Amino acid sequence: MYYGFNYKKGEFYAEGVPVREIANAVGTPCYIYSYSALKHGFEKLHSAFSDIEALICFSVKANSNLAVLRAFANFGSGFDIVSGGELFRVLNAGGDPSKVVFSGVGKTEEEMRFGIDSGILFFNVESLEELYVLDGVARKEGKKARIAIRINPDIDPKTHPYISTGLKKSKFGIEIERALDVYREAVNLKGIEVVGIDAHIGSQIFDVSPFVESIRKLVQLADTLAKEGVDIEYIDIGGGIGIQYREDEKPPPPDLFAQAVKREIANTPYKLVLEPGRVLVGNAGILLTKVLYTKVGALKKFIVVDAAMNDLIRPAFYDSYHEILTAYESDAKREKVDIVGPVCESGDFLARDRMFPVVKRGDLLVVQSAGAYGFVMSSNYNSRPRAPEVMVKGEEFFVVRRRETYEDLIRGEEIPGFLR
Amino acid sequence: MYYGFNYKKGEFYAEGVPVREIANAVGTPCYIYSYSALKHGFEKLHSAFSDIEALICFSVKANSNLAVLRAFANFGSGFDIVSGGELFRVLNAGGDPSKVVFSGVGKTEEEMRFGIDSGILFFNVESLEELYVLDGVARKEGKKARIAIRINPDIDPKTHPYISTGLKKSKFGIEIERALDVYREAVNLKGIEVVGIDAHIGSQIFDVSPFVESIRKLVQLADTLAKEGVDIEYIDIGGGIGIQYREDEKPPPPDLFAQAVKREIANTPYKLVLEPGRVLVGNAGILLTKVLYTKVGALKKFIVVDAAMNDLIRPAFYDSYHEILTAYESDAKREKVDIVGPVCESGDFLARDRMFPVVKRGDLLVVQSAGAYGFVMSSNYNSRPRAPEVMVKGEEFFVVRRRETYEDLIRGEEIPGFLR
Repeated sequence: MYYGFNYKKGEFYAEGVPVREIANAVGTPCYIYSYSALKHGFEKLHSAFSDIEALICFSVKANSNLAVLRAFANFGSGFDIVSGGELFRVLNAGGDPSKVVFSGVGKTEEEMRFGIDSGILFFNVESLEELYVLDGVARKEGKKARIAIRINPDIDPKTHPYISTGLKKSKFGIEIERALDVYREAVNLKGIEVVGIDAHIGSQIFDVSPFVESIRKLVQLADTLAKEGVDIEYIDIGGGIGIQYREDEKPPPPDLFAQAVKREIANTPYKLVLEPGRVLVGNAGILLTKVLYTKVGALKKFIVVDAAMNDLIRPAFYDSYHEILTAYESDAKREKVDIVGPVCESGDFLARDRMFPVVKRGDLLVVQSAGAYGFVMSSNYNSRPRAPEVMVKGEEFFVVRRRETYEDLIRGEEIPGFLR
Repeated sequence: MYYGFNYKKGEFYAEGVPVREIANAVGTPCYIYSYSALKHGFEKLHSAFSDIEALICFSVKANSNLAVLRAFANFGSGFDIVSGGELFRVLNAGGDPSKVVFSGVGKTEEEMRFGIDSGILFFNVESLEELYVLDGVARKEGKKARIAIRINPDIDPKTHPYISTGLKKSKFGIEIERALDVYREAVNLKGIEVVGIDAHIGSQIFDVSPFVESIRKLVQLADTLAKEGVDIEYIDIGGGIGIQYREDEKPPPPDLFAQAVKREIANTPYKLVLEPGRVLVGNAGILLTKVLYTKVGALKKFIVVDAAMNDLIRPAFYDSYHEILTAYESDAKREKVDIVGPVCESGDFLARDRMFPVVKRGDLLVVQSAGAYGFVMSSNYNSRPRAPEVMVKGEEFFVVRRRETYEDLIRGEEIPGFLR
C-alpha cells in the first residue's frame, strides 16, 4: 500500500476519505491524488539533496493538473517542461518561471519566444539547428536565451525501449563527442548565454549506476569547458528514477540515489538540476473504476470495468503492469481474469491473466500507481469524455478537474454550409 | 496516390486546394479530409451491395468529426456506435437514429437509456449480464430494446493482435456454442426484442475468407433459431475490411468483398448490416505537418516535425506504417531517416529507417492514410493542443474543428482553496 492510501474498517481510503464516497460524488472512472503523498514524496527527495545546491524541477509531462503543479510550486519545486502548453500550465498554477527548464526536440519559435519572455531558467537545446533558431528568436526579442546543451551520453538504462532516451540511436540530445564543438559555437552566438549541461537517459530506471555514469560524463565535459573559459553553472541530470509498480519491485530509495549522485557532484562548482516526474507522482495517484459486467468467455473470464485504454493507456501502450485492488477488503475466492475496459479493441485491457477476487457488477476497483502518465495521456477515443481528477487532503476532497461532458467532445467542431 | 489527393504543378493538393494554402491558413499539424473521397468511397461500397437489402453503418470510432458524420448521413449511411458520446455525435450531425447499431462490451445504463430513447435500430449485446441489465433498463422506460447478440465465431483474421476481436480468448461477444441458449433466454425477457445476430472478427483484414467463414456461421445460427420460432431480421457482419497503407499492399476491392459476402446471404431471408470504418475514411484523410529541425545523430538522421504521437499514435501504438510524402514534388537525394515528433519519448515517431528525400526546416510533409484512427485517438499528451480538422470540397476548404488553444487545455481545472 502506498503513502496516502490504505484500507480502514474494510474500505479503501484516500487519506481520510473512503473512495466510495468520491465515486458517489463524481462517478467513475476518476483519478484520485493524495496531497500528502505528493508532499511526502517531494520532501523526501528534497531533503536527500538539501546539503548541496540542487534544484528539483518536477517533470510536468508526468502529471500536469493545475492543482498538482500548484502543490509542487508551494513546496518550492521548479518545473521541467517540454512545450508551450506546459509553460502555460506552470504559469497558471503560480509556478516560478525562474525555476523552469524547457526540454524537448521540437520547440517552435512561438514556444521559444514564450519561454524567453517568461524568463525561464534555461532551455535544454537538443540540436545544432535548434541552437541557431533559438539564437535568432532571442536576438529578435532583444534578449539572451540561457541554454544547456542536451548531451546524448550513450548509456543504456535497461528499461522499455520507448522510454530509453540516452542511446546513440535516440532522437534526443547531441552526441557527447560533438558536444565541445557545439558549445564552442554556442558561446559565439549573440542571442545565447551558455549556463548548463543536460542529459536524460530514460525513465523507470532502477539501477543507480547509469545515473552515476551519466553524471561523470557531464562533470568531465563541464571541467573541459571550464578550461576553455566556458563557465557551466548547472548540471542537469534529467529524471528517470524508477518507482514500484509490482509488489516485488524494489526501486532505489531516494537517499541512496541521492548519495550516489552527490558523491559525483559535491566537490565540483556546479549546481545540480533534477527533473523527477514519475517518482514524485506515480504512486500518489489511483484510478478508481467500477465493475460493469463479469463475463465468462470460452477460454477466459473477464471483468469489464468502466475505465478504458482512453483513460489509462499504459497497459496497452507500454505493456505496463498496474496493481489492481478491490475498494473493499475481500476474502472472496481468487480466480484468473482479464480486467478490460469498454473500448472496442482487444488492446483495451488494464490487466491480463491476473489472479483477482471474484467481484460483481457495481463493485469499485482501485488501479494503483496511476498518478504518472495517467490522465495526461488520456484521450477521447471512442468519444468517451475524459475522467475527472480529484485531490484528497485529510478528510476533504476537491474536484481539481471536472468530468468532461458530451458537449466538451464536440467543442470547436462545425458542419460546413454545403453539408447542411 | 489516393482518391482526392494529388500533385499538381509540383505541389500536393487536397482536391482543388494546395495543402500549403491550408497550412498558411490554419497552421500545422492539421488533419485534412477530402469530401469527394468520402463520397466516392461510400458510393463504391454502397453500389456493391445495392442489389440486396443491406444497411451500411459507418463505424463512428474511426472518425467521429461532426462534418464527416454529416457527410455520411447525407449519403444515406447508418452508424455503428460504441458509446453514448458517439450517439450524441451522430444525433448532432443529423444522423438517423433508426439506422444506428450500438456495439461495445461495456455499455452503462445511461448509455442504454440514451439508445432506447433515441430509437436506435438495435443493440449488439456482448454478454449475458448485459442482456439482463438492458432488459431492466428497457422495462423501466416502458419500452423494448431491440437486440442482436454478438457472437464470437472464433475466427483468426490474421491481423494485429490488438485488433483481432473474434478469437476465443477475446473479450468480445458470446461463444457461438452458447449462443442458442442466450437467444432462448433473450426471447423470454419482456424488455427485449430479438432482431439480429452480430459478429465482428477484427480490423484491417485483407483476406475475404474469414468474412465468408463468419457469415456462414451466422446464417447457420439464424436458420437454427428460425426453426425454434425466433425470427432474425438482421445479420450484422461487423467491419474490418483492410485498406492500403503501404504501396505494395493489395486489399480486396469492395466489389470482390461484396460478391463473396452476397453469395452467402443473397438467398436467405436476412437483411445485411455492415459496419465499415477504416475502409470509408482511412485514405480520405491526411495529416499535414511541418519540418521543425533536421538533425544528424551518431547513428541516425532525424527529421523532427511538428506532429507527434499525441496527434497520430498509430505508428507507436500498433507499429503501423504510414506513407509520408513531401508536399512538393522533390527530386532531392533520398537518405535513410527517422521522422519523429516533439514529444519526449523514443516512441514518438511517424516513420523509422525510411528512405526519404532530403528536406529542410519549414518544408511541409504529408502523412497519408490518416483519416481513420487518427484524430479520434489524439490526446493532449505533453500539454499539446489537439490539431484542427479541415474538410476540402473542390476548390474550397472548411475548418470542421478548430485547433485547440492553451485555454482549452485547462478547461474544467480548479486549484482548491487550501493551495492558494
